[in-house]
Amino acid sequence: MSSAYRIIHSGGVTSAKGFLAGAVHAGIKSADELDLAILHSEAPCAAAGVFTTNQIKSAPVITSQRHLAGGRAQAIVANSGCANACVGQQGLVDALEMAGLAAAKLGIPLEHVLVASTGVIGVPLPMDRVTSGIRGIQLSREGGYHFARAIMTTDTRPKEMAVKIDTGEFIIGGAAKGAGMIHPHLATMLCFITTDALLDAGFLQSSLQKAVAISFNMISIDGDTSPSDSVFLLANGLAGNEAISFNNGEAFQEALDRICVHLARSIARDGEGATKLIEVAVEGAKDQAEACHAARTIASSSSVKTAMHGNDPNWGRIVAALGGSRVELVQERLDVYLNNICVMKQGCPTPCDKEEIRASLAIADKVLIRVCLNLGSGQATAWGCDLSEEYVTINSEYTT
Amino acid sequence: MSSAYRIIHSGGVTSAKGFLAGAVHAGIKSADELDLAILHSEAPCAAAGVFTTNQIKSAPVITSQRHLAGGRAQAIVANSGCANACVGQQGLVDALEMAGLAAAKLGIPLEHVLVASTGVIGVPLPMDRVTSGIRGIQLSREGGYHFARAIMTTDTRPKEMAVKIDTGEFIIGGAAKGAGMIHPHLATMLCFITTDALLDAGFLQSSLQKAVAISFNMISIDGDTSPSDSVFLLANGLAGNEAISFNNGEAFQEALDRICVHLARSIARDGEGATKLIEVAVEGAKDQAEACHAARTIASSSSVKTAMHGNDPNWGRIVAALGGSRVELVQERLDVYLNNICVMKQGCPTPCDKEEIRASLAIADKVLIRVCLNLGSGQATAWGCDLSEEYVTINSEYTT
Repeated sequence: MSSAYRIIHSGGVTSAKGFLAGAVHAGIKSADELDLAILHSEAPCAAAGVFTTNQIKSAPVITSQRHLAGGRAQAIVANSGCANACVGQQGLVDALEMAGLAAAKLGIPLEHVLVASTGVIGVPLPMDRVTSGIRGIQLSREGGYHFARAIMTTDTRPKEMAVKIDTGEFIIGGAAKGAGMIHPHLATMLCFITTDALLDAGFLQSSLQKAVAISFNMISIDGDTSPSDSVFLLANGLAGNEAISFNNGEAFQEALDRICVHLARSIARDGEGATKLIEVAVEGAKDQAEACHAARTIASSSSVKTAMHGNDPNWGRIVAALGGSRVELVQERLDVYLNNICVMKQGCPTPCDKEEIRASLAIADKVLIRVCLNLGSGQATAWGCDLSEEYVTINSEYTT
Repeated sequence: MSSAYRIIHSGGVTSAKGFLAGAVHAGIKSADELDLAILHSEAPCAAAGVFTTNQIKSAPVITSQRHLAGGRAQAIVANSGCANACVGQQGLVDALEMAGLAAAKLGIPLEHVLVASTGVIGVPLPMDRVTSGIRGIQLSREGGYHFARAIMTTDTRPKEMAVKIDTGEFIIGGAAKGAGMIHPHLATMLCFITTDALLDAGFLQSSLQKAVAISFNMISIDGDTSPSDSVFLLANGLAGNEAISFNNGEAFQEALDRICVHLARSIARDGEGATKLIEVAVEGAKDQAEACHAARTIASSSSVKTAMHGNDPNWGRIVAALGGSRVELVQERLDVYLNNICVMKQGCPTPCDKEEIRASLAIADKVLIRVCLNLGSGQATAWGCDLSEEYVTINSEYTT
């Protein structure tokens, strides 16, 4: 069943059968950009979500969690420019009204509408603009791209992907946004995945959690989490396939993993101010949890991120970041590779050509850090990005 | 006994009776700056140390830990420009030789010499330069300032302080370095504290740990820890005071706390690229451990640090950083103040003048963030600094 799917060119959230989307510039963002969108399925969907672990949850997250309690949904209404977080009870009222406006427009039950908002915290949604905006949205099969654009904040490009399973049975498509306040266990990131496959409810939630664990939970932009993070999976069953469950779900899981990893990597690569993707592969950890923690710690380290920004082969920072984590390690067994060049073997520096490493760092838009702990069989990969002056500039001026 | 001490103008590690210091430019750093120093007590000292929690420990840390096992020391040899970390067995040989050279020069036992190194990781110490450098060091009662300069890396100014207890019984003085890779639980920071007080051995270690807990462990520059962090306390007893122990140690502890907090704040304020100090006071946490964690989490948040750099009153990031921690909180009880202006009351935004906050952020070189959880009696203060473009520039070019 390996790689039994092909990528759909320009595919996204409306590639799967029965999904429509559309977006408008409602005026929530001051710039003349799309900022309000609806994703709609012609048929009710089995639905699952994974949400931020931040204790401060945005009103849309709370609302969507309540609406997902029944495991069904048929639409998502999303906006950028305002997170609808930390605004007290008004936030819940507004999120519910936003869902209600979409429900009325689409003629579906309120509790079948999920809500997602991203942007500034502590500012109420401009509900007059949301109201007229929702009325103005035109839904179409071609609207996936507009949906992907409308959820962007400081992203420089939309992030989409869709695949069709080789057997032709079903399609999975997704869109995501990222850019800042991104860290393991979800941060200001939103991801919407649709499929026309018929999925068993238990498998639906389980497969999404599995995919999120190896993708969105393995990226870090700046170590901050956000109150708004949400990953949604909607399955409308219109493909007419035999229901997919744990016993026959391998191909679906593989395709879903691929989409989530692609979108997560796209978020890391497009981190605020980023000029390159940093991929951290950890092998030989005591177990997988330790490997995950080690990879994320290195990918999150400011001193590693700035060194990579400057094409500086200062691998001591990788080792210091690893040592600063709680991961079990034995220095004498530690091997470290930077862009596939061994810089540390069994805990000692190796004679390596620093200019060769520097040149390889300068050329590519991707840095590969590989750490072998040589203690066990745990392995994991995390993704981050370099830390640039531009990140600081973007974040110093965000609300101003 | 409150504030029963006065600050000694231009005081430092040689203010207490019997301490001498000196430094040279040995050539470990390429720039023509002091980079090698010795601190010496005329009499053997009771000594204690607190070291990095990073699992990768530099050779000087391992060596000093061994030498401190007996609780006695009489000198410290320190260098900047090279951390003597991650260089295998050679590191331990070099650290021991460095201690031995100082011991021979001073005519004291090898195991009474402590070692501290800070700088690039993964590069061996240039022992020829260290050898001739140690020979050239001239020790004097006025050498404390040179010692404080010689331990600097990217610090922009030396960090020193000394106080004399009002009763005139004894003096405590200290010097520290910081700048980058600074995070709770010690990072690339070194601190040397001397006193001519006679101290009970158990009280010595305990008082240092208490002072470090509320000072150096409460600062963060960039979330990275280092293999080299060390805080030393040497007490030579030359003041001739009645031995200080737990039953009569209040004034000593208070003065030691004051020096450590001052030096820790100085390190935070002088963080790489920093333009302002950020002080985070957390009150009403469930307990003190939670208050410490909350304060450190906020002081470490990249998005908070960049907002403060831009004088941006984007307090939502403070709340998001807090929520991203594991600290128990109830959003409806949360109050947040920025420069003493209430921005959130009981979990809701307050009507406040953002321009007034912006102006207050722009004027001062210190930002005060106060968070009241209103759950218990735990309180703590942490210090950090803003994150500037300059931090990135410094760290992109460190070894190059």
